[in-house]
Amino acid sequence: MERHFDEALKDLNTDILRMGAFAEEAIYKSIEALKKCDNSIAKSVVNNDKKIDELELAIDEKCIDLIARYQPMAKDLRFITTGMKLNTELERIADIAVDIAQRALEVIDKPILKPLIDLPKLAAVAQMMVKTAIDSFIKGDVDMAKKVLLSDPEADRLRDLIQKELVEDYMAKDASTSPRAIQLLLIARFLERVCDHATNIAEDVIYMVQAEVVKHHPERLRQ
Amino acid sequence: MERHFDEALKDLNTDILRMGAFAEEAIYKSIEALKKCDNSIAKSVVNNDKKIDELELAIDEKCIDLIARYQPMAKDLRFITTGMKLNTELERIADIAVDIAQRALEVIDKPILKPLIDLPKLAAVAQMMVKTAIDSFIKGDVDMAKKVLLSDPEADRLRDLIQKELVEDYMAKDASTSPRAIQLLLIARFLERVCDHATNIAEDVIYMVQAEVVKHHPERLRQ
Repeated sequence: MERHFDEALKDLNTDILRMGAFAEEAIYKSIEALKKCDNSIAKSVVNNDKKIDELELAIDEKCIDLIARYQPMAKDLRFITTGMKLNTELERIADIAVDIAQRALEVIDKPILKPLIDLPKLAAVAQMMVKTAIDSFIKGDVDMAKKVLLSDPEADRLRDLIQKELVEDYMAKDASTSPRAIQLLLIARFLERVCDHATNIAEDVIYMVQAEVVKHHPERLRQ
Repeated sequence: MERHFDEALKDLNTDILRMGAFAEEAIYKSIEALKKCDNSIAKSVVNNDKKIDELELAIDEKCIDLIARYQPMAKDLRFITTGMKLNTELERIADIAVDIAQRALEVIDKPILKPLIDLPKLAAVAQMMVKTAIDSFIKGDVDMAKKVLLSDPEADRLRDLIQKELVEDYMAKDASTSPRAIQLLLIARFLERVCDHATNIAEDVIYMVQAEVVKHHPERLRQ
């Protein structure tokens, strides 16, 4: 039984890594579609979402089965319930990729408003945060999770910078730019929401690791 | 033990209802602040968020303890894990109320752009959806949960209507309206996200009820 449970936990790890890879890929492609003005990439993000939704349900079901079958205690139980939360966050990240792809489809066929500089930077921060957050869960690494939290202000800063530029330098000066500028502004906000989801994951990981420490090793609280 | 477990489940119900009431109140107040141009209401939403975050952690901890202590099977386990999901959704709704309150603080001291008509309508839809979603969980009522799903297109419609009006009738015509219009546009999008969270809750409830039906009474699948 012990061996089966360990194997089932390893399976869960693999599934979550897969879910994470799908979510990361969806974000990457949605921004590629925008950068390259490529309709087909944007559409592939939209079409791929069903597969990700199905994987989310399958992982959720696996977690419930794991708990019901093995009745894991403390640390393992917390790993599984945190896995369920990650699973939801990753599915939401993939949903946001669809939102970005749909906004991209709106701007791709219109004249280019401005060269994209900060938006790809924000996308890179978002992808790094998602990747690091998933790794921190798999490794139960609090320091790695804290690195994610430390990146969030940079994401906020980039979003505010992009928003300020679009509103003040475009929309408030030339009303005809508004319909296009609004799409870029929304994409920046979507990317920042991806960073928020990565932050949620990192907080869950820190909570998962420290709740056990606090409960079972209160003397380590000083660390 | 059985009696204790039932009491613990009732406690969990009460906690989630409380969390739901806080989330609903936060949304209501954030829109009141905007409608009445009242800074103090907006600030109270921001300041109240810490209390809601603490309740979220407490509920989460209770759920883990319930699973670890009573090792509930099938139906009860699924009720608790769905409760954990609801808890997260409700905390996110409260976070969005803070976002709305912060946007409201940006527009309150500026000249009024337009009378608010559709935004309060969208807020009413959002509040109704959240309330109905929580009720559907407490009662395990799939029909009620489906009512929530049926309201989501109306929320999308109102958001699109608000966005279209703000962009086409204000921002694209008079660039000086952009900085104010953008805040109202973001508030409409925040409200629609509240509806998305209510939809997530409703889907979780349907899944919670039907997963048991599918697993244990496949003959009822036709219903």
